[in-house]
Amino acid sequence: MRGNNHILNMSPRKLEVCLTPALLHLYDIRESIVVVIDIFRATSSICYGIENGAEAIIPVATVEICESHRNSDFLLAAERNGEVVDGFDFGNSPFAYIKEKVNGKTIVLTTTNGTHAINQSREASKIVIGSFLNLEALCNWLKTQDKNVLLLCAGWKDKVNLEDTLFAGAVVHHLTEDEYRLDDSGIAAADLYALAKDDLNAYLKKTSHSERLKKLNIEKDIEFCLNLNITTAIPVLEDYKLVRMVFKFI
Amino acid sequence: MRGNNHILNMSPRKLEVCLTPALLHLYDIRESIVVVIDIFRATSSICYGIENGAEAIIPVATVEICESHRNSDFLLAAERNGEVVDGFDFGNSPFAYIKEKVNGKTIVLTTTNGTHAINQSREASKIVIGSFLNLEALCNWLKTQDKNVLLLCAGWKDKVNLEDTLFAGAVVHHLTEDEYRLDDSGIAAADLYALAKDDLNAYLKKTSHSERLKKLNIEKDIEFCLNLNITTAIPVLEDYKLVRMVFKFI
Repeated sequence: MRGNNHILNMSPRKLEVCLTPALLHLYDIRESIVVVIDIFRATSSICYGIENGAEAIIPVATVEICESHRNSDFLLAAERNGEVVDGFDFGNSPFAYIKEKVNGKTIVLTTTNGTHAINQSREASKIVIGSFLNLEALCNWLKTQDKNVLLLCAGWKDKVNLEDTLFAGAVVHHLTEDEYRLDDSGIAAADLYALAKDDLNAYLKKTSHSERLKKLNIEKDIEFCLNLNITTAIPVLEDYKLVRMVFKFI
Repeated sequence: MRGNNHILNMSPRKLEVCLTPALLHLYDIRESIVVVIDIFRATSSICYGIENGAEAIIPVATVEICESHRNSDFLLAAERNGEVVDGFDFGNSPFAYIKEKVNGKTIVLTTTNGTHAINQSREASKIVIGSFLNLEALCNWLKTQDKNVLLLCAGWKDKVNLEDTLFAGAVVHHLTEDEYRLDDSGIAAADLYALAKDDLNAYLKKTSHSERLKKLNIEKDIEFCLNLNITTAIPVLEDYKLVRMVFKFI
């Protein structure tokens, strides 16, 4: 069916990569699906938490907003500069988002880069969360959608980083090129992923960002976040909450 | 000598890639050399024009400023959206910057992306112009400078493009990695260049940008701009004019 639509429209869907939130203003996302990507570690942890039964994850912009939910039933997660903010239940390590901790719970989350990228995308037709953990599920779902797709890398403080770029490349790599019109960032990301995919961790070790992360003593987190396809949930933003996408079969 | 300095300082020079002018505010360039890159075609033409004896090229922001020099001895060059602006001597095709036309002349130039990038870099310690035409000369000179280097890709209307990224990668590739601290964009650019270098033109043909350029009927310009090391001049900004760098031997 979609193939026929394309012949009629002569305009395949766009698949673009925005390498940092600082470039988001260059894209018209009102009719697009935006996939937010913050591999180390916010969107990996969100995917893992939603997979493990978290009822919802509420991304908020500041530590203060997170703090304002203190006297509620919510779990409070706050990370800045790679570390848990003092006084909060946890940050964005995926190992904090296990079933025993998050099942049935709502989590209020603020992080340095990931929640910032989600909040900047509010105009999008739909916002979903991507990570290597749910790569295949995400790509399979994207293929069924007749919409333009923008892969939004959260980066590091508005600078480009390799891990988010590589994941964007993985998505481009997995979607059929024929059905999408790629931009230059998408082509670059897919080529970098093809170079790195046999050993993502080894490839990422040469980055300066990796040096920074090593100092934070989160090597186990990094290794975990590079696991492919260990979850199937696709977190989607609904009324300011990230929840598990429910598939409707018609 | 520099090696010893590094042991003392424990801080090798930075070599960073800014993938579009829209990200320039993220870098402190006051102590850096900025290399401005607009391969198709502004910085290629500037290198070629200066090589061919142009006394100076004055980059200006708007067509109106360019126009205001109408009653002078200057040649007026104005390009917007890939085409020569009506009423101007020429635009940014390198074939307009031949010796017969530019030798001994001053050119006032405004382009869609390249002159914009130059103007945004005014705070830099030094601004030089790079293209595949002067790659080796540029890299040899950079190696002698004890400064941080920012490779600034002009992009296309603030979006990332592959040809500028590839050239940035070529520079990273040619400079000794040991003596520089790379950022993630620099690593990505160098890996993309390594993929593409055996046939830059073939690699770039898959980009959407290339489709756009093809429509402008500038395939010969593109082929010319991908020639390696056919010029040795390094254009440098001095008092608002790009002139040929004069090497001082002490």
